[in-house]
Amino acid sequence: MRNLMVLGKLAFASLFALSLVACGGSEKAEETAKVEKKAETIHWKMVTTWPKNFPGLGTSAEALAKNITQMSNGRLDVKVYAAGELVPALEVFDAVSRGTAEMGHSTAYYWKGKAPAVQFFSSIPYGMTAQEFNAWLQYGGGLQLWEEVYAPFNIIPMVAGNTGAQMGGWFNKEINSLDDFQGLKMRMPGLGGEVLKKVGAVTVNLPGSEIFTALQTGTIDATEWVGPYNDLAFGLYKAAKYYYYPGWQEPGSAVEALFNKDAFNALPADLQEIVRAATQQANVAMLSEFTARNDAALATLVNEHNVVLKEFPKDLLEALKVASNETLNEVAANDPMSQKVYDSFKSFLASVSQWHDISERAFINARAND
Amino acid sequence: MRNLMVLGKLAFASLFALSLVACGGSEKAEETAKVEKKAETIHWKMVTTWPKNFPGLGTSAEALAKNITQMSNGRLDVKVYAAGELVPALEVFDAVSRGTAEMGHSTAYYWKGKAPAVQFFSSIPYGMTAQEFNAWLQYGGGLQLWEEVYAPFNIIPMVAGNTGAQMGGWFNKEINSLDDFQGLKMRMPGLGGEVLKKVGAVTVNLPGSEIFTALQTGTIDATEWVGPYNDLAFGLYKAAKYYYYPGWQEPGSAVEALFNKDAFNALPADLQEIVRAATQQANVAMLSEFTARNDAALATLVNEHNVVLKEFPKDLLEALKVASNETLNEVAANDPMSQKVYDSFKSFLASVSQWHDISERAFINARAND
Repeated sequence: MRNLMVLGKLAFASLFALSLVACGGSEKAEETAKVEKKAETIHWKMVTTWPKNFPGLGTSAEALAKNITQMSNGRLDVKVYAAGELVPALEVFDAVSRGTAEMGHSTAYYWKGKAPAVQFFSSIPYGMTAQEFNAWLQYGGGLQLWEEVYAPFNIIPMVAGNTGAQMGGWFNKEINSLDDFQGLKMRMPGLGGEVLKKVGAVTVNLPGSEIFTALQTGTIDATEWVGPYNDLAFGLYKAAKYYYYPGWQEPGSAVEALFNKDAFNALPADLQEIVRAATQQANVAMLSEFTARNDAALATLVNEHNVVLKEFPKDLLEALKVASNETLNEVAANDPMSQKVYDSFKSFLASVSQWHDISERAFINARAND
Repeated sequence: MRNLMVLGKLAFASLFALSLVACGGSEKAEETAKVEKKAETIHWKMVTTWPKNFPGLGTSAEALAKNITQMSNGRLDVKVYAAGELVPALEVFDAVSRGTAEMGHSTAYYWKGKAPAVQFFSSIPYGMTAQEFNAWLQYGGGLQLWEEVYAPFNIIPMVAGNTGAQMGGWFNKEINSLDDFQGLKMRMPGLGGEVLKKVGAVTVNLPGSEIFTALQTGTIDATEWVGPYNDLAFGLYKAAKYYYYPGWQEPGSAVEALFNKDAFNALPADLQEIVRAATQQANVAMLSEFTARNDAALATLVNEHNVVLKEFPKDLLEALKVASNETLNEVAANDPMSQKVYDSFKSFLASVSQWHDISERAFINARAND
């Protein structure tokens, strides 16, 4: 196919050249052709929060850029910058806001200092699964709210991926009841960390680079990270033996594409549609990749590295659920926009979980061999 | 944006005209422009199995066509034909195969007469959820197998939607145990119907148009259809009182886009990528729509129409699971290609359901208030 396309282009060029030859090949016409070619190529920078080719996230940003470039036949050429290449990981939002980059790839909860309501667009403790989040965005008013939260920053958000449900984390001791969380030092950022404090744990904030050593030396007793795929790559099984589920704190973590509003609005309508479709293509692909690779990595962790897989005790899960609701109510009470988003989120979740209780949930429970 | 785009085109036209004026505006150059314009517009017909604007399915086909046309800026113009407009509902496959239409929109199990293995690409009793199916297609070798099954028919398949988990069906009596299925006359097409026979029910095949009356008059005791969204629109609550879950027979029914291989391969590479992205965009959108609308329709059925919502008894679900495995083994034993697909399907399902047991399943069980 590529050959055909090239032939097609060559054929066009020849015809155009012929028309010039026919009239003596004026310089003016040649200049015209150059101007037109130039006007049709738009170069975009995509800044990301991820290290170069970070599994599942950095790789998805690269695929998204490539797909936009291919679909537009090079008219919109997107170049990806890993964290630190153009701006630091956590300056993606600012860079897109001021137009240093036309596009970004990150996850919303990093920007809670800009607006607390952004947290509802990553993952919420005891919140929505990936499928429910997509439905809220497209058919429950979620996307309009997200656009409203980002509008003052001159940014248009789109969902561009989801890791699916994450794991509860790595622990260096068994957790048999809520009591075992009293005084437990656990690394957990964001809202999950706030929830932990309410059930008696000590929340520790550590950058990713310090987690392994802190866990191995006993500076912390436990940490969350992502799921089997990333956790295996990170080697966390060497620092702790017990791997707990479910990941109550991040039941479906969305990844976002950010667009400078002026840059996006300056695109012709066809390129805008191409960008929208490419983000949804990336959305399915990332969830599919995490689903397939988590599964394979889980087998490796259990069978080759003798990781002990355990479910959190019921009383702890119940306490975490109550504490999650309290935390969200507090976030909402302190910020009108958060309240507005939370009302929509909570109402859609209450309703959709009734449906999922009798559809997906009832089905996978019936399918399970236990 | 549209105005800008039109301006852009006008500007190009003016510049091109200028170049002609500059050299006397030869007829040859004008012809060249016409040839180029003509070559760039491709008209495609999309035949579908759905009535015009059928909720969730016909509407998704329309949206898919519109998005392809918009993304290609009209270079690939897709026109949708409802069932019967160009070919009957169940001749979509043949029409695309022979090139009467370049594209189709349907679901794979309709073509089991062509090749039994196609059934693995719609929905399988006790099979995969939508999320698992997407992961199998993209990261488990599923899509390559699907392409292999359709290749002899000159068709390229892509997934273009999913209804998510369906309901178990409408019953005019309570089902308290496996015994209540003995001699029960239930309308159910496809593999689900084969499974039903194995547990003692009488499988009835009826076209959609005859279901309502058959259920109301007692010609059948029960029927499956889709889920709350479509079942409410169909009025089935007027003909039976009990609405059972889970939909063991269709845990995630995929919708397909079919492409005539010659037509697809003749597209330039950018249009091929546009088509691929558009089908994945449709894939997310359909599942999101069914998730959101099933939920709202369920509330209406229960609150306004007093439908009694019930879970199938455990012994029946177990018997149906055993019978499902038997049925799939039989399908595979009778056809080498089905065996090849089933081996891949079964292996991916066994593995991914281990992961989903401790991620999605463990999470939604912890979240549920019961």
